[in-house]
Amino acid sequence: MNINARVPVGVLGASGYVGQELLRLLAGHPGASVAFATAATAAGEVVEGHRLVKTEDAPVRGVALVFSCLPHGVSAPYVQEMRAAGRRVVDLSADFRLSPEAVYGLTEFARPAVARAGLVANPGCYPTAALLALIPLARAGLIDAEREVVIDAASGVTGAGRSLKRELLFGEVAEDYRAYAAGNAHRHLPELRASLARESGFSGDLVFTPHLLPVRRGILETIHVPLTRTLDQAAAEGLYREAYGGEPCVLVTGGALPSLKDVVYRNRVALGVALVGGVARPRLTVIAAIDNLVKGAAGQAVQNMNVMFGLPETAGLAC
Amino acid sequence: MNINARVPVGVLGASGYVGQELLRLLAGHPGASVAFATAATAAGEVVEGHRLVKTEDAPVRGVALVFSCLPHGVSAPYVQEMRAAGRRVVDLSADFRLSPEAVYGLTEFARPAVARAGLVANPGCYPTAALLALIPLARAGLIDAEREVVIDAASGVTGAGRSLKRELLFGEVAEDYRAYAAGNAHRHLPELRASLARESGFSGDLVFTPHLLPVRRGILETIHVPLTRTLDQAAAEGLYREAYGGEPCVLVTGGALPSLKDVVYRNRVALGVALVGGVARPRLTVIAAIDNLVKGAAGQAVQNMNVMFGLPETAGLAC
Amino acid sequence: MNINARVPVGVLGASGYVGQELLRLLAGHPGASVAFATAATAAGEVVEGHRLVKTEDAPVRGVALVFSCLPHGVSAPYVQEMRAAGRRVVDLSADFRLSPEAVYGLTEFARPAVARAGLVANPGCYPTAALLALIPLARAGLIDAEREVVIDAASGVTGAGRSLKRELLFGEVAEDYRAYAAGNAHRHLPELRASLARESGFSGDLVFTPHLLPVRRGILETIHVPLTRTLDQAAAEGLYREAYGGEPCVLVTGGALPSLKDVVYRNRVALGVALVGGVARPRLTVIAAIDNLVKGAAGQAVQNMNVMFGLPETAGLAC
Amino acid sequence: MNINARVPVGVLGASGYVGQELLRLLAGHPGASVAFATAATAAGEVVEGHRLVKTEDAPVRGVALVFSCLPHGVSAPYVQEMRAAGRRVVDLSADFRLSPEAVYGLTEFARPAVARAGLVANPGCYPTAALLALIPLARAGLIDAEREVVIDAASGVTGAGRSLKRELLFGEVAEDYRAYAAGNAHRHLPELRASLARESGFSGDLVFTPHLLPVRRGILETIHVPLTRTLDQAAAEGLYREAYGGEPCVLVTGGALPSLKDVVYRNRVALGVALVGGVARPRLTVIAAIDNLVKGAAGQAVQNMNVMFGLPETAGLAC
Repeated sequence: MNINARVPVGVLGASGYVGQELLRLLAGHPGASVAFATAATAAGEVVEGHRLVKTEDAPVRGVALVFSCLPHGVSAPYVQEMRAAGRRVVDLSADFRLSPEAVYGLTEFARPAVARAGLVANPGCYPTAALLALIPLARAGLIDAEREVVIDAASGVTGAGRSLKRELLFGEVAEDYRAYAAGNAHRHLPELRASLARESGFSGDLVFTPHLLPVRRGILETIHVPLTRTLDQAAAEGLYREAYGGEPCVLVTGGALPSLKDVVYRNRVALGVALVGGVARPRLTVIAAIDNLVKGAAGQAVQNMNVMFGLPETAGLAC
Repeated sequence: MNINARVPVGVLGASGYVGQELLRLLAGHPGASVAFATAATAAGEVVEGHRLVKTEDAPVRGVALVFSCLPHGVSAPYVQEMRAAGRRVVDLSADFRLSPEAVYGLTEFARPAVARAGLVANPGCYPTAALLALIPLARAGLIDAEREVVIDAASGVTGAGRSLKRELLFGEVAEDYRAYAAGNAHRHLPELRASLARESGFSGDLVFTPHLLPVRRGILETIHVPLTRTLDQAAAEGLYREAYGGEPCVLVTGGALPSLKDVVYRNRVALGVALVGGVARPRLTVIAAIDNLVKGAAGQAVQNMNVMFGLPETAGLAC
Repeated sequence: MNINARVPVGVLGASGYVGQELLRLLAGHPGASVAFATAATAAGEVVEGHRLVKTEDAPVRGVALVFSCLPHGVSAPYVQEMRAAGRRVVDLSADFRLSPEAVYGLTEFARPAVARAGLVANPGCYPTAALLALIPLARAGLIDAEREVVIDAASGVTGAGRSLKRELLFGEVAEDYRAYAAGNAHRHLPELRASLARESGFSGDLVFTPHLLPVRRGILETIHVPLTRTLDQAAAEGLYREAYGGEPCVLVTGGALPSLKDVVYRNRVALGVALVGGVARPRLTVIAAIDNLVKGAAGQAVQNMNVMFGLPETAGLAC
Repeated sequence: MNINARVPVGVLGASGYVGQELLRLLAGHPGASVAFATAATAAGEVVEGHRLVKTEDAPVRGVALVFSCLPHGVSAPYVQEMRAAGRRVVDLSADFRLSPEAVYGLTEFARPAVARAGLVANPGCYPTAALLALIPLARAGLIDAEREVVIDAASGVTGAGRSLKRELLFGEVAEDYRAYAAGNAHRHLPELRASLARESGFSGDLVFTPHLLPVRRGILETIHVPLTRTLDQAAAEGLYREAYGGEPCVLVTGGALPSLKDVVYRNRVALGVALVGGVARPRLTVIAAIDNLVKGAAGQAVQNMNVMFGLPETAGLAC
């Protein structure tokens, strides 16, 4: 690959965990070069060799793509400004995930639209894992809408960002574990519902409960699916293998359930399944694991960039 | 309390995490004195000031109570021998939990029977938390048997014992998180089903999925309960406060969901509740937290001893 | 012990890690009762059953002893006020540790003075471990002042307090380890030098380097001592066993080097020694471990209270 | 780089942490292809897409280079066999590190010899960090041999390997920290002494004390150096910047001391320095950090392979 052909990109909001991860991935990417990286209070600091400039001073002239890792609510006006200036944008905030202006960038299900998109809304970390687990079942008509789908998700603390909150201190998180936003109060739920309905037509009830794990990175979701008909283990595994045959960033582990260490530092979702015994009605438990900073954020953003610019889809990514 | 009145006790199997915790609790107990502690391969080692003797050499003459922390399957013959010798026994293994010979020692629901029992089967750690969460709802007829109760439980590694398994190495567990025995394959499930049915008459379907947390101690269970009728938050909290009013070892946190740090090193279950929004049928999520080594094992065993010998129920215990 | 005879105490600054630990210890203390506990921004919160009041509203009338867990610099004026009101005080801040107004409360070496003190300056966590390790060697004239004593200390994060600093976030501390205040820049060093000189006459050079460990609690110090003469392992161990024979809160482990798990949640220092082989001049390495929140702070404060009020020295303490 | 030009390599002992890391690095290496990977009891398992074969069945015909990650003592005969069969070898065990048959592969100081070597002895993890920190000072005649160099090293558990030992269980290591092999008893010390003498002529006394950290990976060494003359901070930093100017795998952080997170998952040593104040004789504290699995093992092995085969020195490595 000719260095002159590298896609020049900029990163807005590069001082948080997602922004840092994105710069780390771009540093090893053979087809991209970082023209600038920005921050608010952290302007002046150096991340992966880039001195962060103020976000309002971002030298957007000359870049082909802007990644926005700005916080939810803060991102939208900058994204609009970049779009008005003719730049293509991958927005990692939640600001456009429910908007018709943007292509929802769950890469495996959106390649053609991503390829020509001006604005890609990069999916949230929790929805990425849940959607990749549920869409194949929903498309096959296997989810019983008369009983709820129960999703217990556990995330490492980098998923909560790098802001200064007492509840994120090491002294509070270490040796602890807790649920939060229980009772369907998490802001990712509307994104999950809408995306699942759009991709599969499924609109049954979901119960989503996130938890905070004492680890740095990784999300594991334990997804309890009531089935419309009986399956055996081979059929359940086969459904996923067929759905994702040839996908470079999806690993179907089958009955050997995945754990965080199968996915951290990789742009991969790992999916395992277990049929539930000893119950009257058919049920399947699906385990989905991702690295929240990679396939759940910066990695999928790079994957989308690759699709947008005709690069090999996994360039710069360990899958 | 007169030191001469201390109950002389013995501990079989004192080299594992549960046995060590029991000796730690007994060391600070004003009404008990440890006459002996035993081990197999660890005989000769010193734990909390006691030199461990071979289990087969336990000097049972002169003790009033024997705790067995021996492994499942190993415990039963020793327990039988102690019973034949006229000793009262609290068995912390699973060997008698489904047996009519023993009183199932979920203290809060079994005080009169425990008080006169010759043999108490101390409940398993996962069932302890689940039962204390579910019995009040089940007795009130609130659980809809047409939809499954889904229990996702996460445990610290001391729950898996101190045996040498690769999957328990620090290098494997740290920064990891995983489900195991998914699909209702865990051996605690029959105990949970049977005990719940006996205490409440409920026999609907359960889906139980344990997970391994990268922490030393503590269990948190996220329990998804389909309801037979609509509740509001106040009613849900009130039900628990009424069920457990005056209970020294139960903390009802209401809508402020408990976490591991509310319970570690304490003989306490903490229970919180969240009604589920955005779903068509009524649902409640209950969070139950215990220290697997204390209320889930050694602490509840001491609580049972206190009841058996007419001591204050929380003597020697921080609740 | 008659409940009417319990010493009524107050706690200033009870919302930090040290204050919480002190309330936890006092909750289980048979000879003390907490009359009030205070905080600044956390006033109104409940800790161990005590509703925190504003520090300036502390109802000091009627208490016999005030513990101050206020921050360094903040504590002094409150302590002066309590002293002026005739209260005895144990100050856990650094404000009086170098002051002739206070008795330096390294209990094992200060019992008579502590017993009659109006104001006890509770030692810092790092100096507590280092002094208990070095005083016996220094008194025996064994430390060679021509070569420096090198102390590498590693502390859990609760030693850094509960304040909101980015460097204390879980995402920064987990899986990390680092030195700080290297080059003799730590503020505990003057306290250590002065106390060591006062207790032993030793005034040779020290090199003190603290490190931050990814654990919640515990300090381990690796202390490299150049010796004035050759010792053998038995003599080194014997020196400590003789110095601390009968001390309830000192555990001499000899050649089996102690680790954090020997001391956490206990009011104990554990001391181990290793003679250094393969070097031309005689050298000893001493390992000292404490729980920074217990023997390094709240536990030693309770130990001092016990001495001040004629209670059993380990009342309320697990040693 | 033409895929046909990839160096065909084999890996002996690929089931441990070092072997797995090596396969991970080789998977992303543009100039190498893995022809086989072996194991003993783990034969049949799949690591990074390679099915492990029995070590004795390694199909060495056709490979240009063999990496041995076999245990110390086990490696030597296999290495001899590979050499006899005409293969070039990088041995990651300790078996040849003191042998004249091998080139000691501390890459930065051994490039010409490594380039033409048949057998490279890859340095141990602890010596790698210590040597890169000490050689520049020793060559400049700055280390005072009249006082000992004191090295306190702390390592993550993957440095201890993946064998089944109780002391490596999560339940033992988490929240703990301890010294081991104190008193100069560690087997890496002769390697360190010999290599330091060979590279710099320095043969003064060293005191080396390793510690076990509750992290997965990373080594941080706090190295206390008595100086022959006074330095200021700028001169100390300058010495390192001059020694390592242009080195791609050495990061001199100067007075901003490095921590594990500056080096994990990177083939880099980070070096920081702090002059010691308040002491009569001049002293410098050097902090050296590496990832024990990368620059301390598999990464440096790849760096050596790159030198041996004329590839870009950092090919396949994030530095």
